[in-house]
Amino acid sequence: MVGSSNRVESFPDATDLEASLPFPTPSFTPLQVHNVSVPQEQTTFQSLKQRLGEVFFPDDPLHQFKNKSFLRKMVLALHYFFPIFQWGSDYHLKLLKSDAISGVTIASLAIPQGISYAKLAGLPPIIGLYSSFVPPLIYSVLGSSRDLAVGPVSIASLVMGSMLREVVSPDKEPTLYLQLAFTATFFAGVFQASLGLLRLGFIVDFLSKPTLTGFMGGAAIIVSLQQLKGLLGIVHFTTKMGFIPVMQSVFENRTEWAWQTVVMGLSFLAFLLIARHISLRRPKLFWVSAAAPLTSVILSTILSFIFKAPNHGIKTIGHLQEGVNPPSVNLLDFGGPYLSLAIKTGIITGILALTEGMAVGRTFASLKNYQIDGNKEMVAIGAMNMAGSCASCYVTTGSFSRSAVNYNAGCKTALSNIVMASAVLFTMLFLMPLFYYTPNVMLSAIIIAAVIGLIDVRGAFLLWKVDKFDFLACMSAFFGVLLISVQMGLAIAVGISLFKILIHATRPNTVILGNVPGTNSYRNLAQYREAVRVPSFLILGIESPIYFTNSMYLQERILRWVREEEERIVKSNESSLKCIVLDMAAVTAVDTNGMEALSELKKTLDKRSLDLVLANPVGEVAQKLSRSGTWELFGSEHIYMTVGEAIAAASYKCQT
Amino acid sequence: MVGSSNRVESFPDATDLEASLPFPTPSFTPLQVHNVSVPQEQTTFQSLKQRLGEVFFPDDPLHQFKNKSFLRKMVLALHYFFPIFQWGSDYHLKLLKSDAISGVTIASLAIPQGISYAKLAGLPPIIGLYSSFVPPLIYSVLGSSRDLAVGPVSIASLVMGSMLREVVSPDKEPTLYLQLAFTATFFAGVFQASLGLLRLGFIVDFLSKPTLTGFMGGAAIIVSLQQLKGLLGIVHFTTKMGFIPVMQSVFENRTEWAWQTVVMGLSFLAFLLIARHISLRRPKLFWVSAAAPLTSVILSTILSFIFKAPNHGIKTIGHLQEGVNPPSVNLLDFGGPYLSLAIKTGIITGILALTEGMAVGRTFASLKNYQIDGNKEMVAIGAMNMAGSCASCYVTTGSFSRSAVNYNAGCKTALSNIVMASAVLFTMLFLMPLFYYTPNVMLSAIIIAAVIGLIDVRGAFLLWKVDKFDFLACMSAFFGVLLISVQMGLAIAVGISLFKILIHATRPNTVILGNVPGTNSYRNLAQYREAVRVPSFLILGIESPIYFTNSMYLQERILRWVREEEERIVKSNESSLKCIVLDMAAVTAVDTNGMEALSELKKTLDKRSLDLVLANPVGEVAQKLSRSGTWELFGSEHIYMTVGEAIAAASYKCQT
Repeated sequence: MVGSSNRVESFPDATDLEASLPFPTPSFTPLQVHNVSVPQEQTTFQSLKQRLGEVFFPDDPLHQFKNKSFLRKMVLALHYFFPIFQWGSDYHLKLLKSDAISGVTIASLAIPQGISYAKLAGLPPIIGLYSSFVPPLIYSVLGSSRDLAVGPVSIASLVMGSMLREVVSPDKEPTLYLQLAFTATFFAGVFQASLGLLRLGFIVDFLSKPTLTGFMGGAAIIVSLQQLKGLLGIVHFTTKMGFIPVMQSVFENRTEWAWQTVVMGLSFLAFLLIARHISLRRPKLFWVSAAAPLTSVILSTILSFIFKAPNHGIKTIGHLQEGVNPPSVNLLDFGGPYLSLAIKTGIITGILALTEGMAVGRTFASLKNYQIDGNKEMVAIGAMNMAGSCASCYVTTGSFSRSAVNYNAGCKTALSNIVMASAVLFTMLFLMPLFYYTPNVMLSAIIIAAVIGLIDVRGAFLLWKVDKFDFLACMSAFFGVLLISVQMGLAIAVGISLFKILIHATRPNTVILGNVPGTNSYRNLAQYREAVRVPSFLILGIESPIYFTNSMYLQERILRWVREEEERIVKSNESSLKCIVLDMAAVTAVDTNGMEALSELKKTLDKRSLDLVLANPVGEVAQKLSRSGTWELFGSEHIYMTVGEAIAAASYKCQT
Repeated sequence: MVGSSNRVESFPDATDLEASLPFPTPSFTPLQVHNVSVPQEQTTFQSLKQRLGEVFFPDDPLHQFKNKSFLRKMVLALHYFFPIFQWGSDYHLKLLKSDAISGVTIASLAIPQGISYAKLAGLPPIIGLYSSFVPPLIYSVLGSSRDLAVGPVSIASLVMGSMLREVVSPDKEPTLYLQLAFTATFFAGVFQASLGLLRLGFIVDFLSKPTLTGFMGGAAIIVSLQQLKGLLGIVHFTTKMGFIPVMQSVFENRTEWAWQTVVMGLSFLAFLLIARHISLRRPKLFWVSAAAPLTSVILSTILSFIFKAPNHGIKTIGHLQEGVNPPSVNLLDFGGPYLSLAIKTGIITGILALTEGMAVGRTFASLKNYQIDGNKEMVAIGAMNMAGSCASCYVTTGSFSRSAVNYNAGCKTALSNIVMASAVLFTMLFLMPLFYYTPNVMLSAIIIAAVIGLIDVRGAFLLWKVDKFDFLACMSAFFGVLLISVQMGLAIAVGISLFKILIHATRPNTVILGNVPGTNSYRNLAQYREAVRVPSFLILGIESPIYFTNSMYLQERILRWVREEEERIVKSNESSLKCIVLDMAAVTAVDTNGMEALSELKKTLDKRSLDLVLANPVGEVAQKLSRSGTWELFGSEHIYMTVGEAIAAASYKCQT
């Protein structure tokens, strides 16, 4: 093994060396040159184990089980798999009060939103209530977040509706549509739980924040546009989702606009938006926006009842079946021509639901300074969707708006979800007839008021200011969703985000470094204006791993730097270039193409009598250079621990 | 702008500071703390211009035109676009001798190989000769390599044949097949030239060397297996390419094996392989392998003529049309049902041809110490294929084997291609009847002997030794080509290579740094065993940009490092952890998710009364941190130029 010994090499005479430096060396003490070490060689199995450990178990989930008795391990395992036992064992009455208040508060929000979101997904309103009953119960047993309020959410509802409606009409084939929705929910659950069990949670991270900002903004507009049907009382509406067909449909059916519906819708929308605005301004008044939807539903229902709204062209929800969730296992369909549609819909809504749920869980966990386990959370959300699909529920997750209310109302544990589910159960058993007169336009107003908060103009502006590429990803997602389709918008944005990583690995920065006076540090001349070039040396920092995608570019780019430096030297009459130092601190990986490029570069520069020296190759790179023979090609006298030592040694060599 | 001024902050009393350091400081002179600079703010247009310049014009092609007179500029432009004027103006007789010798030598190789490769592509043998005539002429005018020998090559021929044969049979619909081949060639040329003109040459780099090693190995085996048809004299052979169907076909048609053919084929194959072996061992005897194919063709033709081979079941080439390339513009078909096939085939063969041509050109340029311009070379190769498709030629590029012969035979300029083309012309005009008795089996032997060199077992073994992931990409390409299909094998390998980059950006290394005694440097403890931890500090090196793909991971991973460090400290009874220093030297980029992760991390650690300090944020990162407000959140007293200064300052602060 080359360079694996820990030799510290002393120069014959330190005074000699200092005298030999071509520039003043105020704080320089280059008495010694340190050999660059190569990390200890591991067996293939060891390094594979370590690598896989980093990929799949970065959080080291077993560390809490170390050095514990068997009984304690069992208890910990029970706590690990069923967090309810963890918080349940310490539960006391004082907590119950907080949880009960927050549970009832989110129920008052969950009932109208559940009915509305089900409509958004093209499902009967009652499915929204079913979905607010079973999944919260399951989550309260398995989930590790204390603040998540579980139920249907707007984005997942929209995407499921948009994907299924492309193929099947919920009006013409309601049973098939319902079958597909439950089957897709089942697959969403399977997908979510698998991601957690296989510890592939990082796939969720591939939806970057800029992508989500753009996507949610676009989706919010799409959702709001869809609500124009209810808000304007239009009967014949397009089944398409895009901006253009919807606007066409709205204006082609001008004759169907019903002024009574419009007036009622806009008034309540204004009410909801004002309530939302008040709560945003004063977080203590969170209950204003939390209570507003239920208040509106009650008010509008009473109005509708008094004025016999259906007679004036205002459509109402009508009869809703009383009773708890009927089983729906028999509706799951794992064959037939629509299986692939169900799987695709399940995966996309599943990942979106997961993204929202995880983000919400993490946000509130960080506010209360506890941590949630991403992979475990995925299993919990997946399990509740799998179970939900067998009990007439469609895709659910942690909702941002309701979780915020839950948090503000002072919830302490997942018990608030149980309280909410009980309130929903009570509603389903006894209060269903009350919804008979609830106008449909009310549901549209609730949806619009809920999604309008997803449009984050300030966030998009900040992206423009800070990172243009992120802004591009954001805008592609936005316009992709708006003009093409929900799935395509998402795909384009993810593609652009990944392309950004690849372009960084394809055209990395190379910068000229100079000595920061009075220090041993070498920094980018463009960044530190006080840094000065070292005569006869060209010090280049390479700001990327050297991969096949950039090895050819780097080779040519470095040669161009050399050419430009030589031209500059000729112009300014400085001492001629002798040595090129590559600062490898940021070269965190190298592949076979990269090593070949380094060797090629060395040979090319050798032919021009220029020295090529590497400074600070990091662990993995040093190991590979050594294994591949590139190290030997360079020789230990061309590889140093720091740029400073490389320069000192090279200057010394030139003198002797 | 935060931190953009160049303040150098002195501590009140240096002696104070040194006394306050918690560990001995032999070569420490931390008298000053340097402010971290942020690069000068650029306008969006400026930074876009610079960025695009790096992406599309990394070689700064216009630099040679700077500060030149108009006339000189014109001459340089002529030289730039038509390199023939550059070398042509200095041409003299001594060069001609070398070029003539090498030209004739490569012609003797090009004629039998041309005929053979055309058969490999499913085309009439004569197309192979046509393709060795027009393209070399065009390349000699436009190409910048002095050593490239242009003509049909095995890999591109194989891929074109395999892709077209999947849809159209060359035996049943020869005209359609020919049309498709020319149309695909045209698109290959358009694609190649566009890559050059749009300066997207880096796309070729996405075929990494490991991928190519695996792909070529697999393709060589596929090609050799295909030749079993000719070598065994089988009449009914599968049209499929995969390993399994071919072997099935070989053994199912055992009855068709013809011993005369087998004996002749194996003898000449042995002769060719021995000749190749001799030349490999002694490069000076390059002419042995260069002359072997033509010698074999002549010998086998004479034998076949004497023994009336066709009467013994040995199939011969038969009648070949005399004359120069007929025009084929009328055969190009830009409509109809096969257009997408032609485009797809054109793009894939085009990129493979380009990869081979560029690699060959670069290899020999570096041997002779000149540089070729990648983008210009692509335009030259593209132009010759576009022109070729109109003159009955199929895809051509620089062939590795013939270029090596060209180089060894002492070629000086692209004139050797003109000499070769003339020899081919002479053959086409006058020597075609001589091929009447050439046995088909001879062509199979020539193909096998040529492609067997593409199987690089030693290269694959080196990959295994140096880089397991590269080895995986290599093997996927190999088995993908062998067992699935040529295109799929290629796609899988490229996918794996790109996935490797993404996984590095998703699960980056984080390492603990320690002080290397006697220096101001902080290095990986696992790499430098002499490095020592700094009490009360946890110094982490982050070896990757912080992106959306890894921001969540890094946040959790760093918290785990902190937890483990605290556990270690408790065990070993050391002084408690106070400060976490992140060495950002290798964090060469950051996006909005990354900055949010840093802010989150700071808040989390603040709650635990732990200091989080950043050391050495590089230019772009410093700029973004400053623009987004993250810098202000940290405050200048938490951002330092070096790890050493960060530690000195933090220790000082703790003491005061």
